[in-house]
Amino acid sequence: MSHYSDMFEHMLNSQSRWLMPGPDLDIVISSRVRLARNLRHAVFPHYAGRDMMIDVRRQVFDAALNMDVFKNNWAIALEDVSDLDKQFLIERHLISYEHTNDGDGRGVIISSDEGVSIMVNEEDHIRLQVMLGGFDMENAWLEANALDDAFSQSLDFAFTPDVGFHTACPTNVGTGLRGSVMVHLPALVITKQINKVLQTISKLNFIARGLYGEGTQAMGNFFQISNQASLGYSEEELIDSIKRVIKQVVEQERMARERVLKTGRMMLEDRVLRAYAVAQNARIVSSKEALELLSLVRLGVDLGIITDIDNALINDLFIITQPAHLQKISRRKISSRQRDIKRAKIMREKFSGEKEDNETKS
Amino acid sequence: MSHYSDMFEHMLNSQSRWLMPGPDLDIVISSRVRLARNLRHAVFPHYAGRDMMIDVRRQVFDAALNMDVFKNNWAIALEDVSDLDKQFLIERHLISYEHTNDGDGRGVIISSDEGVSIMVNEEDHIRLQVMLGGFDMENAWLEANALDDAFSQSLDFAFTPDVGFHTACPTNVGTGLRGSVMVHLPALVITKQINKVLQTISKLNFIARGLYGEGTQAMGNFFQISNQASLGYSEEELIDSIKRVIKQVVEQERMARERVLKTGRMMLEDRVLRAYAVAQNARIVSSKEALELLSLVRLGVDLGIITDIDNALINDLFIITQPAHLQKISRRKISSRQRDIKRAKIMREKFSGEKEDNETKS
Repeated sequence: MSHYSDMFEHMLNSQSRWLMPGPDLDIVISSRVRLARNLRHAVFPHYAGRDMMIDVRRQVFDAALNMDVFKNNWAIALEDVSDLDKQFLIERHLISYEHTNDGDGRGVIISSDEGVSIMVNEEDHIRLQVMLGGFDMENAWLEANALDDAFSQSLDFAFTPDVGFHTACPTNVGTGLRGSVMVHLPALVITKQINKVLQTISKLNFIARGLYGEGTQAMGNFFQISNQASLGYSEEELIDSIKRVIKQVVEQERMARERVLKTGRMMLEDRVLRAYAVAQNARIVSSKEALELLSLVRLGVDLGIITDIDNALINDLFIITQPAHLQKISRRKISSRQRDIKRAKIMREKFSGEKEDNETKS
Repeated sequence: MSHYSDMFEHMLNSQSRWLMPGPDLDIVISSRVRLARNLRHAVFPHYAGRDMMIDVRRQVFDAALNMDVFKNNWAIALEDVSDLDKQFLIERHLISYEHTNDGDGRGVIISSDEGVSIMVNEEDHIRLQVMLGGFDMENAWLEANALDDAFSQSLDFAFTPDVGFHTACPTNVGTGLRGSVMVHLPALVITKQINKVLQTISKLNFIARGLYGEGTQAMGNFFQISNQASLGYSEEELIDSIKRVIKQVVEQERMARERVLKTGRMMLEDRVLRAYAVAQNARIVSSKEALELLSLVRLGVDLGIITDIDNALINDLFIITQPAHLQKISRRKISSRQRDIKRAKIMREKFSGEKEDNETKS
C-alpha cells in the first residue's frame, strides 16, 4: 500500500467509482453496501483506550496488507490527516463525520478507485463499504461479501450463530449489513408526493436521509435511502428487500417525471433553464444553492431539456463545489465568502468548457 | 390629421420619442411637461354632459387641425377605441388610466413620434403633455409652451390674472404645469437609501410614484418624480426647481452606484448577470419580474458589466413586454398565463437578436 501523501492529489484529479455510470442513472446516483464487523478479542472503539485502538488498527491494516485485492490502496491513520483533508474525505463519502472525532487510533483504507473504503475504529472496529455508480446493489453486495471473506481469513470477527455479527449499536447486530442508495427525486418533490413516498418507505423499515447520511438534511432533492433493521434476515434477503423498495421509489419518480412533463412541461423547462442559466452566470453561489441548481440541471439533462452537457459533468460538480474540495483546488484555506465566489467560477468554467483567463476581483 | 386606423400598426413598429437617448440617460429615462387647460365657456369634464363633452372635443380637435404643428398627427375619439387599444395607449404613456373611463366625448391627439399627446376631457378639458428622452425639462417645457401658445390663438382658456389658469383640481391651479421625470434608481434601492431620498423630495413638495403615475407602485426601481404645487410660481421657476431637485436625485444615485461598485462589485455583478441570464433563458416571466430583470440588466449596461446590448433594446422591452403590447403583437387577446410565456419568448428573442424558429408548446 502507498503512503497517503499522493492520495489527495490523485483524488483531486480523478472521479470516484461511485460517480461512474450505472443502471437507472437518471434517478439513482449510487449504491452502497456497508458491513459492520468487530474483532472478537477487543472492546468496541467507544470503550477502547488509545493502545487498544491503535492495536486494532494495526491488525486491520496488516490483514488488508496481506490481501491481493488491496494492492495499490491507501491505509491512513487519521491522526496524521488535517481537518481540511478529513472534510475532503467526507465530501467524497469515504469517511463519516463521526470518524473525524479526536483521539488516536482511527484509520481508513481506501481503494484507488474510491469504490471501497474501510473505516477502522469508527463506531465498530470495521466499517467496510463498497460503492458503485447507479442502481447496482447486487454487485456492491458481491464485492463487499468477497472482501468480508478475505478479511475473515486473518481476522477473528465477533460472531455467534444465534446472534450473528456483534456490533456496537444493536440496530446493526445480525448481518451488520446496511444497504443504501443515493437517489435524485426532483419530480416527487415538485409534485409534492415526496412526503407520502418517504412515509411509505419508513413503514417498510427504511429511512431517508440527506446526502451525507445520518443527521444531514436532504438538499437539492437528493436522498440517501437505507434499511434500518439488520437482525433476523439473511444478507440476501436484505439486499433483495432494498432492491424491491428502491425499485418502487425509482418507478414512482419516473411516473412523476412523466406527469410533470405532460401537465407542466413549460413550468419545468422554465425552472430547469433558469437554473442552468444561473449556474452558468452567477458570481456568488452558496453550497446549498449549488446543489439546488445542479439538481435542476441534472433533471434537465435526464429529461432531454438540456442536451449540451452530460451527467458526468454534473456529478463532478457535485463533488468539487463542496467546501473542502474548493480549498484543495485553491491550494489554501479560504473563507466562506471566497468559496462562494470560487464555487461560482468553477461552475461557469465547467459549464462553458473552458477556463476563464482572469477573474474579477471582489 | 390621419384617422387612427393605421396608428396602432405604426406605433407597434416604432419607438416612442421619449424612449430616445437624451441627457443623463443612465439614470433619467424621460422628462415630461404637462399643462392643464380649460375652456372658459364650458364646465369641467366631471360636471359636463355628453353634448358639452363632445362639443369641447370638437373645439380642441378643430384648433389642432388648424395648426401646422399637428399635421400627420392622430386625433381620436376614445369611444371608438377598444379596451385593449386603450390599455396599449396607457402602456405607451399617451393616456392616463382615468382617461379610459366610460362615457362619450373623451379624446386624444397624438403626434406621430409620440412625443406630444393631448388628452381632451380627462380631468381638465386639455391635458397637453410633451415627453423627451433623458433629462431634458428645458426643451420639453419650450415645446409645451409653444403648443400652448398655438392653442391660445383659437381657444379661449379659462384664465384670470390673479389666479392664473383655472383647473378642475386646485393643486393644478396657477400655471397648470406639472413636470415629471422618470428615473431609474437601483443603487439607491440596493443601498437602502431610497426612502431617505424620497422623504427629502417630499419635503420639497415633490412626489415619487410608480411607472404609470398616480396610484401605481414603484416597480423595477423606476420612479416618476413630479412637482406637486403649481400655484404661486412662474413656469420658469417651476421648471428650474424640478431641474434642481432631479439633479440632486441623479447625483445621489450616481454616488450610490460608485459606492456599490467600490464595496460590493462582486455582489452587483452576481445580481446583474443572474438577471441577464434569466432574461435570456426563462420560459415564463410575469410583468413584475420582467421589470425587475430589465432594471438589473439596464444597471448592468449603465455600469459596463453588460456590454453586448444597449439601453435602446431594454427601453423597447420595457414597453413591448406589457400586457396590451403582448396582445397587439400576438394579434389576439391572450390569457395572463399565455402572456407570461409570450413575454419570456420576446425577451429571449430580443436578447439573442434572432427569432426562434419554433416554440415549445405548454
